[in-house]
Amino acid sequence: MSYCFDDLRKACREDWDAYVQHAFVRELAAGTLESEAFRHYLKQDYLFLIHFGRAYALATYKSRNITELRHSLEGLKTIIDVELGLHVDYCREWGISEEDLARLPEARATMAYTRYVLDTGNRGDLLDMHVALAPCLVGYGEISNWLNAQPFTVRGDANPYEKWLAMYESEAFQGAMRAEIAWLDERLASVTPERFAELTTIFRDATRLEIAFWQMGLDRSL
Amino acid sequence: MSYCFDDLRKACREDWDAYVQHAFVRELAAGTLESEAFRHYLKQDYLFLIHFGRAYALATYKSRNITELRHSLEGLKTIIDVELGLHVDYCREWGISEEDLARLPEARATMAYTRYVLDTGNRGDLLDMHVALAPCLVGYGEISNWLNAQPFTVRGDANPYEKWLAMYESEAFQGAMRAEIAWLDERLASVTPERFAELTTIFRDATRLEIAFWQMGLDRSL
Amino acid sequence: MSYCFDDLRKACREDWDAYVQHAFVRELAAGTLESEAFRHYLKQDYLFLIHFGRAYALATYKSRNITELRHSLEGLKTIIDVELGLHVDYCREWGISEEDLARLPEARATMAYTRYVLDTGNRGDLLDMHVALAPCLVGYGEISNWLNAQPFTVRGDANPYEKWLAMYESEAFQGAMRAEIAWLDERLASVTPERFAELTTIFRDATRLEIAFWQMGLDRSL
Amino acid sequence: MSYCFDDLRKACREDWDAYVQHAFVRELAAGTLESEAFRHYLKQDYLFLIHFGRAYALATYKSRNITELRHSLEGLKTIIDVELGLHVDYCREWGISEEDLARLPEARATMAYTRYVLDTGNRGDLLDMHVALAPCLVGYGEISNWLNAQPFTVRGDANPYEKWLAMYESEAFQGAMRAEIAWLDERLASVTPERFAELTTIFRDATRLEIAFWQMGLDRSL
Repeated sequence: MSYCFDDLRKACREDWDAYVQHAFVRELAAGTLESEAFRHYLKQDYLFLIHFGRAYALATYKSRNITELRHSLEGLKTIIDVELGLHVDYCREWGISEEDLARLPEARATMAYTRYVLDTGNRGDLLDMHVALAPCLVGYGEISNWLNAQPFTVRGDANPYEKWLAMYESEAFQGAMRAEIAWLDERLASVTPERFAELTTIFRDATRLEIAFWQMGLDRSL
Repeated sequence: MSYCFDDLRKACREDWDAYVQHAFVRELAAGTLESEAFRHYLKQDYLFLIHFGRAYALATYKSRNITELRHSLEGLKTIIDVELGLHVDYCREWGISEEDLARLPEARATMAYTRYVLDTGNRGDLLDMHVALAPCLVGYGEISNWLNAQPFTVRGDANPYEKWLAMYESEAFQGAMRAEIAWLDERLASVTPERFAELTTIFRDATRLEIAFWQMGLDRSL
Repeated sequence: MSYCFDDLRKACREDWDAYVQHAFVRELAAGTLESEAFRHYLKQDYLFLIHFGRAYALATYKSRNITELRHSLEGLKTIIDVELGLHVDYCREWGISEEDLARLPEARATMAYTRYVLDTGNRGDLLDMHVALAPCLVGYGEISNWLNAQPFTVRGDANPYEKWLAMYESEAFQGAMRAEIAWLDERLASVTPERFAELTTIFRDATRLEIAFWQMGLDRSL
Repeated sequence: MSYCFDDLRKACREDWDAYVQHAFVRELAAGTLESEAFRHYLKQDYLFLIHFGRAYALATYKSRNITELRHSLEGLKTIIDVELGLHVDYCREWGISEEDLARLPEARATMAYTRYVLDTGNRGDLLDMHVALAPCLVGYGEISNWLNAQPFTVRGDANPYEKWLAMYESEAFQGAMRAEIAWLDERLASVTPERFAELTTIFRDATRLEIAFWQMGLDRSL
């Protein structure tokens, strides 16, 4: 038996759908999400990105050879040198200054998912950590595609969240998603059923923590 | 300026009180807590203990000398060889079998606090990790003392949670709490104001995650 | 193709033999080893044991479930609560006091092997670390058996190192060796050829670092 | 009492001088070093750089805030995106191809220093790791300055190692050295005597492992 990423998704179908089709992204796609909920999400996503960078730094440390090291370092640079800057710019458009970002309290949902990923990486190997990151890396791309197929989705100037929707359907992001799935497929092909069961638990827990991250946005909770 | 543990508590007074005086422990002390809420808490506390053991194992790994190593190992043995067994026995009294415990899904609040502690330990040094653990190690003892001073607290056979209340007022637990405070006081005495600010953030975040752990019990949430 | 521990040994035959049949252990078995060389080795072995304990603590932290955790903790307790005490006693018989042990400089060969094991554990998973520890855990038992089959080996009161020889042929140690081989065999059975190649590099490097540890004894080098 | 980097150097004067004035660099500066010894050193320095990159990745993971994270990431990028490429080019000039580099066995002296640094970083905090790296980061600059003041040093086309000598006296490297000393001075200013003693042991051990790295070059040992 040979596994692939889609098997993880199937094994956690209910949680995965609850994540991909969460009210937060539905409302965002419909343009009806309250702007304060979106602002709350944007702020916490800034903190999320920093820990996401730490996760790629950990992956870089854990590399077994220079090829693996360069691969993780590319991800790390994209997050810190590119995405974080874009995120700060985007936050500014929503009235959130860099000083605001520097003083944020960290929401419990942010701590939960990010520290889960980091401990999973320290406890296990690179595959464990990538599986923990997959709901983020793969999920956002899939969410974008799912939303674009829904009748309630409003695109263009009529939707204040158009820019967010455009970002995750971009070829840059969709290509990164496909590359991540390919990376996972290659490694999952040779795992034992016992190992697949471990990875399924990680994937399910990470997906549940992503659901809580959307909910944190909706509830504006810390 | 020389710091001590009490300065951490004072710096986070509002969160600390919200934790120590949480509805979950008030209802528990009054004997009015719903038994299903208590069972939910007991189950998650089993998973919590395992990660708590992992935290002491990490501290043992991080030891700088044999004295530090033995100190952390004693804590690790107490958790895994003593407390975990007592907890399993106590769960059985509440109708939760060892098979139930082995199959539990992990609540997000459990993941949040435990992984926060573990990442804090990996990121920083032993003092960082002990400060992250203090709301648990010191807090339970203080909660016990606070509850015993409240008029609503019911002790003895009239309270189904008597055994829980008795455990944390026991000399064994109260002595462990005092030893932990002494350990922290000794190290906090020489930290800089900048370092104290870092530790205050850790202490506050950990306290907030403990509040969420009580709330998880009340809400029976996963 | 299914792998087992013996495949690691075969893949590194030359280094393995250089380790198992090193001049240090030959001279020790013949009773001709200079006592100062043995004392030097005994002192460094004390420091080695402490880091060996740290490695088992790291394994305990990295455990994926309570069964794995208890298994690593048993190893950790054996090292710190039993072996370290026996080692201190044995050092005393050779005129090395506990104060001497507390003040030792650490030899480069000790740092090399111990830190290699610890980084291997942090970088990879439990199997990586066990493979890095195998030259120690399995090797000493095999050395004992090999020495007992050599004509130059002198047993009994005529050999000042009789006690050392007796320790590693004891059923306690030989049983631990067999248990470790069984643990490795179980996990190696399902690794891919690519993974086996990674593990072979670790096993070879660790064996080479053990050779240097014997040589450090002979040379009394720091 | 307030400490600075120079106090570490003074506390380990004998080892520090044995490192800075090692026969390997004396012969290199005089142009009399055997080219095979230099080639052996160059090859191992390639492996060293990769683990050096892993150390900066670990520092990036351990960062407490975005400022610390960016600082470590800049170091990581310099090592992997700049220095490693220059090193590969320089190796090619000495007849060592990239395929040769990819197949190298790792010398014990390389494993010893690099894994010591990495474990020191995992065990302690960023200051511990920077102190372990200081013999490399600061030492090479100091070696360059010391060699330039010696009568036996030959500069220009008459010395086959001119390019190596030029690299470490360059303003780029000397500026990095001064920045590292400033970073250390800032943090050492507020440590306790007990903490300074711990850091002194790390600095001495790391210096001793650097001495062994030069010796490995001279001896062409694995």
